[in-house]
Amino acid sequence: MKLRAHIDIEIRFSEVDALDIVWHGHYVQYLEAAREAFGRKYAIGYEVARQHGYMLPIVDMNIQYKKSLCYGDIVRIEARFVEVDAAKIVYDYRLYTTHDQKLVATARTVQVFIDAAHRQLQLQEPEYFRTWKETMLHPTLVEL
Amino acid sequence: MKLRAHIDIEIRFSEVDALDIVWHGHYVQYLEAAREAFGRKYAIGYEVARQHGYMLPIVDMNIQYKKSLCYGDIVRIEARFVEVDAAKIVYDYRLYTTHDQKLVATARTVQVFIDAAHRQLQLQEPEYFRTWKETMLHPTLVEL
Amino acid sequence: MKLRAHIDIEIRFSEVDALDIVWHGHYVQYLEAAREAFGRKYAIGYEVARQHGYMLPIVDMNIQYKKSLCYGDIVRIEARFVEVDAAKIVYDYRLYTTHDQKLVATARTVQVFIDAAHRQLQLQEPEYFRTWKETMLHPTLVEL
Amino acid sequence: MKLRAHIDIEIRFSEVDALDIVWHGHYVQYLEAAREAFGRKYAIGYEVARQHGYMLPIVDMNIQYKKSLCYGDIVRIEARFVEVDAAKIVYDYRLYTTHDQKLVATARTVQVFIDAAHRQLQLQEPEYFRTWKETMLHPTLVEL
Repeated sequence: MKLRAHIDIEIRFSEVDALDIVWHGHYVQYLEAAREAFGRKYAIGYEVARQHGYMLPIVDMNIQYKKSLCYGDIVRIEARFVEVDAAKIVYDYRLYTTHDQKLVATARTVQVFIDAAHRQLQLQEPEYFRTWKETMLHPTLVEL
Repeated sequence: MKLRAHIDIEIRFSEVDALDIVWHGHYVQYLEAAREAFGRKYAIGYEVARQHGYMLPIVDMNIQYKKSLCYGDIVRIEARFVEVDAAKIVYDYRLYTTHDQKLVATARTVQVFIDAAHRQLQLQEPEYFRTWKETMLHPTLVEL
Repeated sequence: MKLRAHIDIEIRFSEVDALDIVWHGHYVQYLEAAREAFGRKYAIGYEVARQHGYMLPIVDMNIQYKKSLCYGDIVRIEARFVEVDAAKIVYDYRLYTTHDQKLVATARTVQVFIDAAHRQLQLQEPEYFRTWKETMLHPTLVEL
Repeated sequence: MKLRAHIDIEIRFSEVDALDIVWHGHYVQYLEAAREAFGRKYAIGYEVARQHGYMLPIVDMNIQYKKSLCYGDIVRIEARFVEVDAAKIVYDYRLYTTHDQKLVATARTVQVFIDAAHRQLQLQEPEYFRTWKETMLHPTLVEL
């Protein structure tokens, strides 16, 4: 089962430079917005992590830029949950302009679980997250 | 011959969140600052590209985060020029806190050459850049 | 005759802090977005100034904050042109949330004309701007 | 007795535009940095307010821009505490470039006390703040 969520963001005047192109660094917050949309849709966002005593820092991020974004463009950022064995949260992203469906960028982020109280990296995924994954990713098994 | 440059940046109050940690998106501008320092040191920055009619958009960026940055930290960002055959500019980065020399992050960016007038990707590196590379990277050959 | 323009901006996740409140500094770009909307609507924006050889730096800005903005809010920023005798461009702003029409902030900015080539402050408004003002603000006089 | 604190900030490459001038909106974070320096120096910062259950939102900000800031400039921001009768915190600021002591901008911010739990504006200044003021502003009275 594929878990994905998206959000649409309209490019603001303040985000473009003299050439009317969005600075590549702004894309990082677009990814964050899509992660946040995912978290709300599937009840697995930062707040949930915090409630269970965890932080979810990004440890790896990569972005491939395909096409520039301009003022007034509406960019749709789609985040797709990638199932992995390790105690990590991985998302793949696709960004495209809504008026022409053209691919703007692809990206991936990797997050780890940190015990907020002890500031310690978790080598195994926390209980709350494993439960969420089992419920969301293998719902048929649960129904058996 | 290894071409590298660095810049030191002091983390500001406005860059840290409630947990006193720098947001991962801010690192993109630290990389940019190091690229800019490299460009000035070796006379190969954005201005030079612009004078020759080229833009140098980032097409690929990846960052590995190792350790968080805090308010008041001084982070040194070192950019190292990576020699490649393709018509691309590649830098590798190392970020570390100056007070303890601990590695904060590593990164890589890839830029391409765009003809600014025709907005066209260059499949071969522009003449000005090839000359610069030969002079800087293989100075002994030049001296023969 | 009253010249005014507005723009709607949706508050992004990245703009709110841990208390779900927009940082007061972000409002500066909202004002800029409304100025830009005004410039496009009445053909008097930054591009026009640049074509005539002028820059329009802000020399005075003040903002009164009435109510906080939250994630997901849509804020409407209305810019109203204020007629003044001096060689200045003055806008008054009203910001409010669209779902309940509540006033979020008021603001004023003052810009001056700088001759871009000589970097000199203009004590009299440039010809192009006086013409625009006469046409836009006193159209009936023109029609006599 | 005059209470003041300052902080020095080096202008980064990412803060300047194509004309090598700092965008006027960035000054808001410079003011914040000076406020933060003041808070640490006199033990009256955001943390102290939070410990006592208060938030200190900005309700009024005005900035007068005198001279532009460029890449590499070091700007010193001085915050001076302004004694007022109302339940408000007022700072006056002076910004100047350290290499030539030229005035870059002046500013003022006004903050109010909000009871964080009830989100209510305080019409009288909280006890902790009145004590701080008496100790800091009229130390001779205390010594009598």
